[in-house]
Amino acid sequence: MAEQQQKKKQLHLGAFMRPVSLHTGAWRYPGAYPDANFNFQHIKSFAQKLEAAKFDAFFMADHLAVLNMPVEALRRSHTVTSFEPFTLLSSLAAVTDRIGLVATASTTYDEPYHIARRFASLDHLSGGRAGWNIVTTANPDSARNFGKDEHKEHGERYARAREFYDVVTGLWDSFADDAFIRDVESGIFFDPAKMHVLDHHGAELHVRGPLNIARPPQGWPVIVQAGQSEPGRQLAAETAEVVFCAPRTLEAGKEFFKDVKGRLAAVGRDRDDMKLLPAAFIVIGDTVEEAQAKRLKLDSLVHYESSIASLSIALGHDASTLDPDGPLPTDLPETNASKSGREGVLKLAATEGLTVRQLAQRYGGYSGLAFVGTVETVADEMEQWIVQEGSDGFNVVFPFLPQGLDDVAEHLIPELQRRGLFRQDYEGTTLRDHLGLKRPSNKFFS
Amino acid sequence: MAEQQQKKKQLHLGAFMRPVSLHTGAWRYPGAYPDANFNFQHIKSFAQKLEAAKFDAFFMADHLAVLNMPVEALRRSHTVTSFEPFTLLSSLAAVTDRIGLVATASTTYDEPYHIARRFASLDHLSGGRAGWNIVTTANPDSARNFGKDEHKEHGERYARAREFYDVVTGLWDSFADDAFIRDVESGIFFDPAKMHVLDHHGAELHVRGPLNIARPPQGWPVIVQAGQSEPGRQLAAETAEVVFCAPRTLEAGKEFFKDVKGRLAAVGRDRDDMKLLPAAFIVIGDTVEEAQAKRLKLDSLVHYESSIASLSIALGHDASTLDPDGPLPTDLPETNASKSGREGVLKLAATEGLTVRQLAQRYGGYSGLAFVGTVETVADEMEQWIVQEGSDGFNVVFPFLPQGLDDVAEHLIPELQRRGLFRQDYEGTTLRDHLGLKRPSNKFFS
Ligand SMILES: Cc1cc2nc3c(=O)[nH]c(=O)nc-3n(C[C@H](O)[C@H](O)[C@H](O)COP(=O)(O)O)c2cc1C
Ligand SMILES: Cc1cc2nc3c(=O)[nH]c(=O)nc-3n(C[C@H](O)[C@H](O)[C@H](O)COP(=O)(O)O)c2cc1C
Repeated sequence: MAEQQQKKKQLHLGAFMRPVSLHTGAWRYPGAYPDANFNFQHIKSFAQKLEAAKFDAFFMADHLAVLNMPVEALRRSHTVTSFEPFTLLSSLAAVTDRIGLVATASTTYDEPYHIARRFASLDHLSGGRAGWNIVTTANPDSARNFGKDEHKEHGERYARAREFYDVVTGLWDSFADDAFIRDVESGIFFDPAKMHVLDHHGAELHVRGPLNIARPPQGWPVIVQAGQSEPGRQLAAETAEVVFCAPRTLEAGKEFFKDVKGRLAAVGRDRDDMKLLPAAFIVIGDTVEEAQAKRLKLDSLVHYESSIASLSIALGHDASTLDPDGPLPTDLPETNASKSGREGVLKLAATEGLTVRQLAQRYGGYSGLAFVGTVETVADEMEQWIVQEGSDGFNVVFPFLPQGLDDVAEHLIPELQRRGLFRQDYEGTTLRDHLGLKRPSNKFFS
Repeated sequence: MAEQQQKKKQLHLGAFMRPVSLHTGAWRYPGAYPDANFNFQHIKSFAQKLEAAKFDAFFMADHLAVLNMPVEALRRSHTVTSFEPFTLLSSLAAVTDRIGLVATASTTYDEPYHIARRFASLDHLSGGRAGWNIVTTANPDSARNFGKDEHKEHGERYARAREFYDVVTGLWDSFADDAFIRDVESGIFFDPAKMHVLDHHGAELHVRGPLNIARPPQGWPVIVQAGQSEPGRQLAAETAEVVFCAPRTLEAGKEFFKDVKGRLAAVGRDRDDMKLLPAAFIVIGDTVEEAQAKRLKLDSLVHYESSIASLSIALGHDASTLDPDGPLPTDLPETNASKSGREGVLKLAATEGLTVRQLAQRYGGYSGLAFVGTVETVADEMEQWIVQEGSDGFNVVFPFLPQGLDDVAEHLIPELQRRGLFRQDYEGTTLRDHLGLKRPSNKFFS
């Protein structure tokens, strides 16, 4: 039995935090801490619970502007204020021992020397637990916080991201792993023959180096990437060790998995060099109905007026004129917006029997992939995803905290462990160890 | 007696760390941890000892390039690798409760939106213990790590620093202190009327805002500044709440104190709105001779060939041709380099009876203001500095660690407390409380 369990493919689990729930109604849910987004004591307790549950990583989203929402919606969102990832994750590093710490950092609005230093420093501070979620920054409002009139064009952002990655990894390799001799007797602290001056001159970046910090314990912090477009997928294939994606169905997940993993051979990488972890919103109940009721209750906390725009976008049709408490009319005129988006809404309305208001609140709350059910039904679904090669695990989005996290940590995780799908304990100490990723060799020293 | 002590002017003490000692021989001193610069456990224990000794702040220097030294000297310097300040101080925030955390950050090579966010985040994480040491970056090699061929000219760096300060403080004031209502019932998280969009357009910077983080607990993290030049002093007068300076004698300290504090009235500030804390290297012994011997021993760990250049610069004369083990010739030819520098060296050679080698090692190790003696003689000197208005306290530079820190924490501090010159315990919780600085009002909301 134990032997059979050993053979099962293992799930990898991250916790996707911003810094707490993404769901805009979460702070109002009964038992939630309304100030949790900027109360370190709460976030510390969440991280420690995630570590006790053996999660691979605490994964922190980041945005370089307040969300680009109309003020009516913005003023209702707890995500308007948040910690900055390097500072938050460094604090968490000091009060945890094993869990990985993944920070989102932008290649469009920061400098490679800073990014390389901060991740190297976090990796040293945490004993090899850092990961970098490379983003090119989605929110165009960010440009104006960084002296630019216009957000850089999508293709240019990705070209810069690719070069930025080369520079940052080159800076991490400034010193050989054994450069630091620290010979008290002779007074030699390090061997200059083991220091590399990068002297990078590329299309976008000019960076001399060396970095003023020893090579990170992991060699390089784990590279994470969340692009979905063609250049995003290609960047992932060339660089990412964890891909954070957002398919809504197992079919879409399998397509993405096949596509992105299929690109690895051409760039000389193994399929196991990359782990695919889609975002998954998880709501647990004693029965499926109870879980669904929890979700409806959470969605009901999203303000209707501020969510109706999201539904209109998904539908490609102005939904604000519809009766909020009636069903979605099935004879809505066709539009030239996304056909699949419209069909998704119609299908959801039919399957769950939702009113227009409930649909709007779903889209204004969280509308991505969701597992809503008992520990058994949710574990069944998760297992199918890895058996059918839809993913290598998930980045869990908690609906509300602390309860949503406790449900997963105390009930779902033991069920996954019982099935042999998830570790009983950490086997190593670094984030690479947890994810089963190799330590990269140094580009300049063997 | 207790009443009389109450009336005494109080010393403020910071610990100046990089991240451990500045002295290039420190890592070789008996009992030192050679890897302390990148071993978090050691730095954590230092910070906790400093907090137990009631220091105002742990103050972290920072440089954006490896030191611009010849490789012969560089390879002997433990400061070649160091943690990055935001990550290190955020980790320390989680394992301390009261001590202030001052990070050095550059206005020349970073963005105000990032700087504002990171300090605001650190201030929230630490419960109001953050301080920002504004530097324009001294090391010209930094330019080439940030895509520039040339380091910006001194005056331009200061002009940008002044504007940068306005933007950062404006971003900290993006939200009124009472903007966050978090009314679960109505679902209103914050009041948009209490959010300010900065929309700054200046000579150097264009930053829209608002910051995506609530106003820091201290209103603004404490502003620290270390410029010594005319524009540096003027920037200090206009912005700094702590000035970190480097006079070598009490006379020089009094001149600086008078000059910089004298500039405050013209900009509408009180003398108490600014604390002047010179760097002070402190070596304690059971006797004065023992302390001096410790210092000579430490200096002897600085490699002669790599320190002789420092002596030559101070002397304005090539010292490498002199007999290392002989005395400094008193008939050295005059030069057109700094006359006062040359006289300082001659005086030091005579007073302490140092050989050429010992002089070189002093200049290659640490040659700023030093208090070397017993707890009584050192406390006497420190007291004179505040009585005679040379300073409001000191930023202590430890010669070596842990011993040099333990000597101060366990022996000097109790003597200062006995004399009523230093707090027995923290009276407040924030860095502003420790320093006796007012909480700034919000520029946009009263
Ligand atoms: C699950 C997930 C999480 C993301 N988190 C962030 C984030 O924290 N910050 C950010 O700027 N973008 C984030 N993004 C956006 C991606 O960086 C990227 O812009 C988006 O997936 C669109 O892909 P594309 O740019 O390749 O078209 C996230 C995307 C996904 C799918
Ligand atoms: C005690 C002290 C500590 C300093 N620490 C730093 C530092 O950590 N990083 C840095 O770039 N400059 C540092 N400086 C340099 C100052 O920022 C400044 O460049 C220097 O004092 C010269 O002053 P000026 O630029 O006004 O001429 C320090 C200066 C002093 C006096």
